Amino acid sequence: MINYEKRYSGYKDLVNTKLESFILKKFPAGIYDPLKYILSGGGKRIRPVLLILCCEAAEGKAKDALNAALAVETLHNFTLIHDDIMDNADTRRGKQTIHKKWDRDTAILSGDALLGLAYESLLKTRSSRIGEIAEIFNKGIIEVCEGQSYDKEFELKKKVSLEEYIMMINKKTSQLLVCCAKIGVLIGNGKKRLLEAIGNYALNLGLAFQIQDDLLDVFADEKKFGKKIGGDIREGKKTYLLLKGLETVKEKKEKSLLESIITNKGLKKESDILAVKNIYERYGIIDSATKEVEMYTNKANSYLQKIKNKNSRLMLSWFSYMLLNRNM
Amino acid sequence: MINYEKRYSGYKDLVNTKLESFILKKFPAGIYDPLKYILSGGGKRIRPVLLILCCEAAEGKAKDALNAALAVETLHNFTLIHDDIMDNADTRRGKQTIHKKWDRDTAILSGDALLGLAYESLLKTRSSRIGEIAEIFNKGIIEVCEGQSYDKEFELKKKVSLEEYIMMINKKTSQLLVCCAKIGVLIGNGKKRLLEAIGNYALNLGLAFQIQDDLLDVFADEKKFGKKIGGDIREGKKTYLLLKGLETVKEKKEKSLLESIITNKGLKKESDILAVKNIYERYGIIDSATKEVEMYTNKANSYLQKIKNKNSRLMLSWFSYMLLNRNM
Repeated sequence: MINYEKRYSGYKDLVNTKLESFILKKFPAGIYDPLKYILSGGGKRIRPVLLILCCEAAEGKAKDALNAALAVETLHNFTLIHDDIMDNADTRRGKQTIHKKWDRDTAILSGDALLGLAYESLLKTRSSRIGEIAEIFNKGIIEVCEGQSYDKEFELKKKVSLEEYIMMINKKTSQLLVCCAKIGVLIGNGKKRLLEAIGNYALNLGLAFQIQDDLLDVFADEKKFGKKIGGDIREGKKTYLLLKGLETVKEKKEKSLLESIITNKGLKKESDILAVKNIYERYGIIDSATKEVEMYTNKANSYLQKIKNKNSRLMLSWFSYMLLNRNM
Repeated sequence: MINYEKRYSGYKDLVNTKLESFILKKFPAGIYDPLKYILSGGGKRIRPVLLILCCEAAEGKAKDALNAALAVETLHNFTLIHDDIMDNADTRRGKQTIHKKWDRDTAILSGDALLGLAYESLLKTRSSRIGEIAEIFNKGIIEVCEGQSYDKEFELKKKVSLEEYIMMINKKTSQLLVCCAKIGVLIGNGKKRLLEAIGNYALNLGLAFQIQDDLLDVFADEKKFGKKIGGDIREGKKTYLLLKGLETVKEKKEKSLLESIITNKGLKKESDILAVKNIYERYGIIDSATKEVEMYTNKANSYLQKIKNKNSRLMLSWFSYMLLNRNM
C-alpha cells in the first residue's frame, strides 16, 4: 500500500511544483493574482495524477503527460472559480473564494483567462494524436458546462428522477475524469480498445465518487471531511440520498419531511437534520447508496483488466480505493 | 465599390448561414437557448470576414477558412456575453443581453460553453499548420481577457495615460483582429513575412477602429449609430477623447468639468454633455483624434503592400475604409 501512496504523492508533488511556475505573468494583477492564489490553494490533484497514471497504463512516460496534466488541473480550477460564483460559495479548501476575496468580475475574467491558459498548456503536448487530444479536452469542457447547467436546472425543478440525477453527475463529474483518462491513454499512444476501457473506468469511477460524496455529506467525520455534516440537507440539495428517499419512503410524515427539504430550500433545525439522517438509515437509503457506490466501483475496476501492465493495473485499482475511502 | 460590398455581404451571409446550424443541440436549454439567441442576433461579422479575406490574401480558399471563421465569431460572442455581465449592460444590438433576459449564471455558463464550442469549430480546420493556428487562437483569448481586465482596472484608477489607453485597446480590440488575420494567413499557408505584415495591418486597424468608436460616441448620427450620443460621457468612460482632453486643457473651468466626468462617474445634465463636446472641439481634441485614426489607418494599409494579389490588396483596403466610415 505504501508504494502506491508514495507514487501518488510523487506525482502530486510534481504537479504542484509545475503549477508554481505555471503563472509567470504579473500584470494585469486583476487576472494573475487570483490565478496564482487559486492554483497554489492545494487540493488532491486527482485529475492530473489520473491522467499521468492512464498514460503509464498505455506504456507512455509520465514526463510526456505533464503539460496535459497541468491543463486538466487548470481546467478543473476554471470550473471551480465560475461554479463558486454561481453557488455563492464563500470558501473553498478552507480559503476565501475568488469572487469573495476580489469580486464577481475578477472571478469571471480570471476564470476565462485560465481556460485559455489550460489550452495553452495542453497544446504544448508533443503527440502525433494531438488532434484527438484537443477534441476530447473540448468535449470535457462542454460536458462539464452542460452538467452544471442541469444541476442549476434541477435546483428549480420540483421532481428530479434518479435517472436524471445520474445523467447530470455523469456530465458534471464523470466526464472530466473521462477526459483525463483518455488524454493519458492517447499520450501513451494506446490502442482504441484500451482507450474505451479506460474511459469507461473513469466514467464509472466518477459516478461512484459523486454518490460517495453525497454519503460523506451525511456520514463523514466532520474533522476529516473538512466541512459541517448535513450541508446538502441544509442547502436543500437534490442528492442521490434525497431522490432515492423520495422514491422509497411512503409514510406520510417521513415523506413530507423529505419533501420539505426541497420546498423550504433546505432545513435549518438540527433536530430536522437528525430526523432526515434517521430516515435515510431506517429506510435503507444509506444501504442502497452504499451498494450503488460499490456497484459503480466494481464496474469501473472491471475495465482495468484491459491493462497489460500489472503494476499499472494495481496502481489504478488503488487509485479507485483511495478516492472512495477518503475521509471516512 | 459595389463589388467589394457584394463580396463582403456574400461572406457575411455565408457566416450567418453557417451560424444558424452551428448550435444543433437543444438540451440543456439553459445553455443552448441563450447561445442560439445571441448567435442569431446579427452583427457585422467583421472578424470572420476579415479571417476569410486574409486567407485569400495568402492565396488560400475561403471554404477552407469557414470553420475558423465561425470559431472567431463565436469567440467574439463569448467575450460579449461575459463583458455584458461586467458592464451591467441591458441591451446589445437592440436586443436584451443574456444576463438580463435570463440571469447571471446562465450568462456565465453559456459563455463558458461557447468558448468550448469555438475551439471545437477551430479544430475542424484542416491545415498542416493547425498547431500554430491553435496557439494564436489561445493568445487571442488571453489578450482579450487581459484587455478587459485593464479596462476594469482603469475604471477605478484616477489617472490613466494615453499610452496605457493604447496598450489596453491593443489587447481588448486589436489582438482579436490580429488573431483573425493571422489565422486566415496560416490557413492559406502564407509565408512568415506575410503573416507578420497582415498581423500588423490588423493591429493598427484595431487601434484606428477603437479611437473611431470613441469619436462616434460624441459625433455620430444617433439613428445610424444605434445608440444615444455621449454615452461614454454619461457613463464616465475614460476614452481617447477624455484622456487627450485632460492632457491638453489647462484652463481651470474646462479642466475641472473634464475631471468631473471621472470623479462623478459620468455626467447627467445635457448642458454638461454639450459643454464637454464643445471643449473637445475648441481644444482640438477632435482634430487630434481624427488624425490619430488616419495615422493608424495609413499605417495599417501600408502593410497591405506585402500582398501580391491585387484584388486581395484592394479588398482589404476597402475593408479598412468600410470599418472606419461606418455610421458617420
